[in-house]
Amino acid sequence: MNYYNKLYFNELNPRLRANILNCLHGYKSPLLIGSKSEKENLSIFSNVFHLGASPHLIGMISRPDSVQRDTLDNIKKSKFYTINFIDENILKRSHHTSARFLTSEFEKCNLTPTYSDKCIAPYVEESQLRIGLELKEVKNISVNNTHLIIGEVFEVFSSIDIQKLDLSKISNIAVNGLDRYFKTNSHVRLSYAKPDSEPNELDFS
Amino acid sequence: MNYYNKLYFNELNPRLRANILNCLHGYKSPLLIGSKSEKENLSIFSNVFHLGASPHLIGMISRPDSVQRDTLDNIKKSKFYTINFIDENILKRSHHTSARFLTSEFEKCNLTPTYSDKCIAPYVEESQLRIGLELKEVKNISVNNTHLIIGEVFEVFSSIDIQKLDLSKISNIAVNGLDRYFKTNSHVRLSYAKPDSEPNELDFS
Repeated sequence: MNYYNKLYFNELNPRLRANILNCLHGYKSPLLIGSKSEKENLSIFSNVFHLGASPHLIGMISRPDSVQRDTLDNIKKSKFYTINFIDENILKRSHHTSARFLTSEFEKCNLTPTYSDKCIAPYVEESQLRIGLELKEVKNISVNNTHLIIGEVFEVFSSIDIQKLDLSKISNIAVNGLDRYFKTNSHVRLSYAKPDSEPNELDFS
Repeated sequence: MNYYNKLYFNELNPRLRANILNCLHGYKSPLLIGSKSEKENLSIFSNVFHLGASPHLIGMISRPDSVQRDTLDNIKKSKFYTINFIDENILKRSHHTSARFLTSEFEKCNLTPTYSDKCIAPYVEESQLRIGLELKEVKNISVNNTHLIIGEVFEVFSSIDIQKLDLSKISNIAVNGLDRYFKTNSHVRLSYAKPDSEPNELDFS
């Protein structure tokens, strides 16, 4: 095995270092976060995670020193935001939203805003799985001055039956690090684990 | 598009509901967390995310009402833990660690503990990418009484050169929800996004 310690990472140039360190927590879904206060904003995030089922909370990390700042400001003001899944058809356009645009990313990246009557924030019409969230709390992570945005899901739009969700059918892209994208294919569903027997393979749908 | 609101989710049976809601934040890497106080513990987690590069912090959500409790207790006591990536060869055994075992998951799930001289917590010998972390902080998320565990990376073992990390070569499994596993294949690497031009495709390695 190759071995790397803190000293090794500290001596890398900052961009390469950031690129490697961002890989070490594994695959994520690249997700488009839609928000709006004075203007519409769309930004690609991947640090999004499940916080709990009752109530249904999703967490998201925002770095205040980045282009994600506009998203955080909009969410604090309007209290609503959207999560929009990506498939390979809109991958390049979605990645492009991470550039520093002065006007709407929707227009510049050729993605289409669409609205529900319950949500002030825009959804992405090209996305096949879209989630509407209401802000519950923004927690400061003092150790490095990032923010944990906690939202409660209040509506979901899906192009396929959500009870039979094979995510790879509607969003076949995972990301590792800042710029490496992977295709996903359904592999196996495993039964609820019990101490006295090995997990069984289940029907995927 | 199919439409689902809170009322729809509230009327589902709890297990199906948990299963669906756990899918709505996308793909993750299923990761084995090694810890130890009196005894070794190994538990599968997927809510693990990048918190920052300087210092290099990784966050992880722990639900105190689950088998993840032992992991949280061990980490609080010993201050050290490990993240171990999974490939398809050890997927079933890794999934099995989520059962409620009374003795070591290593023995029951046929995985091999291995140690570095800098870390009291066990690594998984079968894993091709292993990360050692020192606890920095446990933050209570009061809104639903979960815990955010924040650790700083102090060493990394990788079977391939970390500067050319194609994660799918050493850990080709992503998870969505509690039990649906996907195979990953490298697809495309995209250049740093700029406002005035579309992202270019880069060499993956």
